[in-house]
Amino acid sequence: MAKQRYKLTIAYDGTQFHGWQRQCPPDAEELRTVQGVLQQAMARTLQVPINLKGASRTDTGVHALGQVAHFSAELRIPTDRLAMAINARLPQDLEVRQAEPVHRKFDAIADVTSKQYRYRIWCDQHRPLVHRHYVNHIWTPLDARLMAEAAKRLIGEHDFGAFAAAGHGRQSTVRIVHDCRIETCDQQLHIVISGNGFLYNMVRIIAGTLVEIGRGRWPADYIDHLLLTADRQQAGPTLEPQGLCLEWIAYRPAPDDQA
Amino acid sequence: MAKQRYKLTIAYDGTQFHGWQRQCPPDAEELRTVQGVLQQAMARTLQVPINLKGASRTDTGVHALGQVAHFSAELRIPTDRLAMAINARLPQDLEVRQAEPVHRKFDAIADVTSKQYRYRIWCDQHRPLVHRHYVNHIWTPLDARLMAEAAKRLIGEHDFGAFAAAGHGRQSTVRIVHDCRIETCDQQLHIVISGNGFLYNMVRIIAGTLVEIGRGRWPADYIDHLLLTADRQQAGPTLEPQGLCLEWIAYRPAPDDQA
Repeated sequence: MAKQRYKLTIAYDGTQFHGWQRQCPPDAEELRTVQGVLQQAMARTLQVPINLKGASRTDTGVHALGQVAHFSAELRIPTDRLAMAINARLPQDLEVRQAEPVHRKFDAIADVTSKQYRYRIWCDQHRPLVHRHYVNHIWTPLDARLMAEAAKRLIGEHDFGAFAAAGHGRQSTVRIVHDCRIETCDQQLHIVISGNGFLYNMVRIIAGTLVEIGRGRWPADYIDHLLLTADRQQAGPTLEPQGLCLEWIAYRPAPDDQA
Repeated sequence: MAKQRYKLTIAYDGTQFHGWQRQCPPDAEELRTVQGVLQQAMARTLQVPINLKGASRTDTGVHALGQVAHFSAELRIPTDRLAMAINARLPQDLEVRQAEPVHRKFDAIADVTSKQYRYRIWCDQHRPLVHRHYVNHIWTPLDARLMAEAAKRLIGEHDFGAFAAAGHGRQSTVRIVHDCRIETCDQQLHIVISGNGFLYNMVRIIAGTLVEIGRGRWPADYIDHLLLTADRQQAGPTLEPQGLCLEWIAYRPAPDDQA
């Protein structure tokens, strides 16, 4: 029996996790990470060591509805029971939403065609209270129409260097944003963005820039200027992680010679 | 300058509070309660000792959007700045939504005409994750139509003894339920109930009973039987506190001779 490759779709509340990526600081207790908690639960359930490769290294406090990871293993458990068996050992802030067998070359990072993030802003004179770990609270009113106009200008293939945190470590800062729009509901304003890839802190810096535009600090076409100069110093601040949620990741279809 | 009576409208996320009521267990550190945290913040802000009388003794884990409390004090701060000044000293899971002067006989408990509670149920094969502290998770499907039919039968003046936890300490278990309805939205089902007063755990036991009816254990008119027998043993279980939220409290108008 050969090893089978599996794809997991994972949801979590990031509030009490130190991000996705397992961290083992020397001379210290291991931090609670999604990857660490999940691998440990899987190893116990499946009785084999598990090494997950996750599609997105979400930061501390960032949430996910559709994180994806792959692993290879020789399992005795039927695939249709795999998610339920793992979930039985997971804490209440983490869940495997789907577990499915994939072709042996499937790669959770390399095969991505598109990802969608949502950044939630709470615009109100009152505190978000029960929403406080899932939104960014902004007391002052925002011009959603102006933000929508600015958001549209991000769509397309551009150099997003102005929206990348220093030390992103990528050779190219060119990415394709497929869609960027504003959704409003009650006192919430959401920035919804999808694209073929995102630089480090890119969504949180885009959110910070759109908020400044919504406040009237810059006009909507200031986005064009940022895309031209690619200068991080001229863009808005990096907003807090808790407003961010990774919603879904789409993949290229399996090759014909799958197996 | 005489003492003025004030009415506070208060919202909180009950997750990390040991309920509303201040508790000082002997030989132990004071538990974190809404009343305790609020009184301490107010005493510091206003520089006078504050004794709050709250309308509802919400339990550990129960949330509130519209808890009400009254107090009397001689304050130097203008009333329109009172809420903001107190909020500056409050943690992120507690907020004074409104502070207003009221007539000197206003009583947060005795003057209530109606209260509304909402009990949130999450009906899904997936975990509630970010909603987990604010809903009760039920894996099995519920018949919302049947629950709505049962809910309607609770409306009116009845003996709600079947829906009161033992040791409620009230002479009469007769109350008036003004409205009881089911609202559904995505995978959530809400039991919304208003009435002139509620017995200890009454909403959570009503929710537990309606859920059993929604599962098909009892028909909708089993409610009539419970209202006749007033027997707690024959009703459903007390559901967990975290699904419960006190939404608002209504008061009789001020008397004409107010001052």
